[in-house]
Amino acid sequence: MSAGKSARTTKTVSGNYFEDFAIGQELVHATPRTLSDGDVALYTALYGTRFAVTSGASFAQSLGMDRMPMDSLLVFHVVFGKTVPDISLNAVANLGYAAGRFGVPVYAGDTLQTTSKVIGLKPNKDGKTGVVYVNSIGTNQGGVVVLDYVRWVMVRKGDVDAVVADAVIPDLPGAVAAENLTIPYDLTGRDYDTALAGSPYLWDDYEVGERIDHVDGMTIEESDHMLATRLYQNTAKVHFNQHVQQGDRFGRRLIYGGHIISLARALSFNGLANGLCVAAINGGTHCNPTFAGNTVYAWSEVLDRVELPGRSDVGALRIRTVATKDLACADFPYKGEDGRYAPGVVLDFDYTVLMPRRA
Amino acid sequence: MSAGKSARTTKTVSGNYFEDFAIGQELVHATPRTLSDGDVALYTALYGTRFAVTSGASFAQSLGMDRMPMDSLLVFHVVFGKTVPDISLNAVANLGYAAGRFGVPVYAGDTLQTTSKVIGLKPNKDGKTGVVYVNSIGTNQGGVVVLDYVRWVMVRKGDVDAVVADAVIPDLPGAVAAENLTIPYDLTGRDYDTALAGSPYLWDDYEVGERIDHVDGMTIEESDHMLATRLYQNTAKVHFNQHVQQGDRFGRRLIYGGHIISLARALSFNGLANGLCVAAINGGTHCNPTFAGNTVYAWSEVLDRVELPGRSDVGALRIRTVATKDLACADFPYKGEDGRYAPGVVLDFDYTVLMPRRA
Amino acid sequence: MSAGKSARTTKTVSGNYFEDFAIGQELVHATPRTLSDGDVALYTALYGTRFAVTSGASFAQSLGMDRMPMDSLLVFHVVFGKTVPDISLNAVANLGYAAGRFGVPVYAGDTLQTTSKVIGLKPNKDGKTGVVYVNSIGTNQGGVVVLDYVRWVMVRKGDVDAVVADAVIPDLPGAVAAENLTIPYDLTGRDYDTALAGSPYLWDDYEVGERIDHVDGMTIEESDHMLATRLYQNTAKVHFNQHVQQGDRFGRRLIYGGHIISLARALSFNGLANGLCVAAINGGTHCNPTFAGNTVYAWSEVLDRVELPGRSDVGALRIRTVATKDLACADFPYKGEDGRYAPGVVLDFDYTVLMPRRA
Repeated sequence: MSAGKSARTTKTVSGNYFEDFAIGQELVHATPRTLSDGDVALYTALYGTRFAVTSGASFAQSLGMDRMPMDSLLVFHVVFGKTVPDISLNAVANLGYAAGRFGVPVYAGDTLQTTSKVIGLKPNKDGKTGVVYVNSIGTNQGGVVVLDYVRWVMVRKGDVDAVVADAVIPDLPGAVAAENLTIPYDLTGRDYDTALAGSPYLWDDYEVGERIDHVDGMTIEESDHMLATRLYQNTAKVHFNQHVQQGDRFGRRLIYGGHIISLARALSFNGLANGLCVAAINGGTHCNPTFAGNTVYAWSEVLDRVELPGRSDVGALRIRTVATKDLACADFPYKGEDGRYAPGVVLDFDYTVLMPRRA
Repeated sequence: MSAGKSARTTKTVSGNYFEDFAIGQELVHATPRTLSDGDVALYTALYGTRFAVTSGASFAQSLGMDRMPMDSLLVFHVVFGKTVPDISLNAVANLGYAAGRFGVPVYAGDTLQTTSKVIGLKPNKDGKTGVVYVNSIGTNQGGVVVLDYVRWVMVRKGDVDAVVADAVIPDLPGAVAAENLTIPYDLTGRDYDTALAGSPYLWDDYEVGERIDHVDGMTIEESDHMLATRLYQNTAKVHFNQHVQQGDRFGRRLIYGGHIISLARALSFNGLANGLCVAAINGGTHCNPTFAGNTVYAWSEVLDRVELPGRSDVGALRIRTVATKDLACADFPYKGEDGRYAPGVVLDFDYTVLMPRRA
Repeated sequence: MSAGKSARTTKTVSGNYFEDFAIGQELVHATPRTLSDGDVALYTALYGTRFAVTSGASFAQSLGMDRMPMDSLLVFHVVFGKTVPDISLNAVANLGYAAGRFGVPVYAGDTLQTTSKVIGLKPNKDGKTGVVYVNSIGTNQGGVVVLDYVRWVMVRKGDVDAVVADAVIPDLPGAVAAENLTIPYDLTGRDYDTALAGSPYLWDDYEVGERIDHVDGMTIEESDHMLATRLYQNTAKVHFNQHVQQGDRFGRRLIYGGHIISLARALSFNGLANGLCVAAINGGTHCNPTFAGNTVYAWSEVLDRVELPGRSDVGALRIRTVATKDLACADFPYKGEDGRYAPGVVLDFDYTVLMPRRA
């Protein structure tokens, strides 16, 4: 069945292994990506998101924007997707996020690129894997930062006998500080229309420790998560190749964790409708895998209510959104008494949203 | 598994129950929505629609339009979707439509909003439900009407002991009158290219009572109808949550009735290719539920051929399109001798299309 | 269940049969189609394509383009789709392609139309079918050619007793000659950024006979291929109607062959990342059918490395890309010793890409 005797060469990308990374190493990731109204429509079709400022241009303009910005998480996925061929093609697991700050808003027509710098390396005791910490920066066509974040990921060694340096673990903040948030909105002197936004509850109405069951559930199909993940040009094989995955321990394609983040954020509209945008990603854990056929639910807790320096029009809420699979959230499922995530919990996401304040 | 002792509050939308509605009540629905070329592309991908005036800008321009208008039914779904959280989140069934008149065409970049007024209330004898009649009006960013229609829906009572007023049932027209139609096209003195449009048959060629089997069938997948329904920001839970639906009497997610309307209209191209746009919705019944895996077919009957006041370039056809599931339409399946819809019939849709006349 | 006594007419398109075609016959195909950023986003979501020049506007501009061109294969599918109702609605099989030359690039906002001319007819010995050769030409709104190609297809006779003329078989080139290629890029004096493009390998680095396993696999879902095929307004029934297909010999919907071409080209990024665009289609065979659930892999062989007249900035590679189903390509599966395609081989596609040369 083979085609015979002509030459075989290797021009394919096989990704980096743990021993290929070095502290301070910089990577320019491939494939600049122009985002358009088409991506916005697809993002709506994939998640049913309803936040007014990223749905209606007239609403965005009522908040002083010239044009309608894109959802921060669409930007996150595109910036993240570019890093996969270089950082996580040989990853075992995506372990965490920190220090994620969104920069200038992204508009239809903007072209995004990503570069990464290796800021930490920790060989695992098993000798077969290690943890790579990268600081990735997404920029628009003008070179202006749209997202700056850290993630760490467990990566296989290509050669288990490769000698690797001692661990360097970066110092990461617990949450992005208020003074480091970019606030693209200025509502001073403007009327914020809560009826059009979908909720009367503003920043002032939330209390630290308050919990909200977002009630609704969304079942995921194979086509949905693959369309999304391809849209983000994320090439991680586990999401796409059933022929290989059927021999894996789960026997299924794994759903990209970011797909769950976007679903959870879309579900959070029901209870957090005035969360204008995700301004920071403080941390996040993909606690359990999700598969096609799972129904995702979500609940949120207000971790902090933060005043923004010099601003009385807009405040920040630090939110933990927990997503579950096939498990309604009326009882706020989270961790067991042993401190481990309950089996149905799939995402523990710590992020900061901006929200209008009462005049 | 619960997260412990912090406060629980209710900021989620639980929708209105029958006793929450009052005659004359006005509702401003949330989430303005900017429609774009991205929505047009998705609409094509979801239904395969081929009507030339909403597919090719050059064709629309040949009919005197500056730009290519969007499909009327895309407008319908978006205007309708906004009403769901306030009107039909607790609905048992969507019972009917009437008096639907499309206004100015919608173009890429337009932002749509919807308001509704309660115009009828009818408590059911079971004491548990009632019928709510609403007149919903969709407008663009200039406040100009793009769609004005009535629908009625059976809604649960939240408290079965709630006292409700006597029935008020609105007077609704059997069909939208010709003088109330908006005609966005002026073909006077223009050549209408039937080859590019896909059919030589114009308004003059159709006869009242004529029936057309649209022949083709389209199988629906879960992803397809959920992508569509999320695109319209329609939040009705029965379309999305298999985890809950599996305990329902059907055990399945129900497909949004509007998805069937759009499929039937797309199928009707084969026989009604010169139907430029849906100008009015005279009535409609979702006779039976549809589920993923069903193959939808359609046939149409010409109910009326209507001259438009002062116009010799364009006429109107009042059409009944009947859609079926897993049932070819060569025999025009409709109602049994008992007057009830045949089991395979899923849609009985009465609407008015505009069509060029012979010079 | 039938609706009774009103008139039945036939205004539906039933397609042409073999005896309906005549040498020299010209067909104007219906439904002009405006392509937009929405189609580009969907194309990315469907295939995950990452070629920089059709992904990032800034990258296209760095190659001297005013705007970002669309993927040639999206153009191919749209131009092709229009021919289906007139050419291949009664087709048994799509047999081959030749002499496909892409013309001016297509940009968002362009409107495409297609016309075809019958250039060959060959009755089959079974008396029931024949082969129709058509030269189809796609043009933009300015009437400028975007694609000119030949395909041949086996079509049923409507009346097996119909008398048909003797065979006329057109003379077709083995490959499109270099002087007939349109080269939309001028890289003279420009820096080509291989990091952003995703590969350091340029035209000079490939050798005739070289083979590349593209490694990655992509599993196809029913929604994916139907969304794609509807996007292209391709109406061939076998792709959409499970209710009919379940009685067919495969019992399944067949996936549009062009969907496999696009998947294979997207997979070829891993090894051929600097293949700027498909400039010519020299030939192609859909060797075996594909169905939802299949995982598609691909490998390529460099058939020729061609200098372009008067150009030192860009060269052409003639490539054979072979796609398989549920069969990894490390061994380059192709044909058996009997010269027949191996069972897992689904596509044998011979085409020409443009690629930057070393300065």
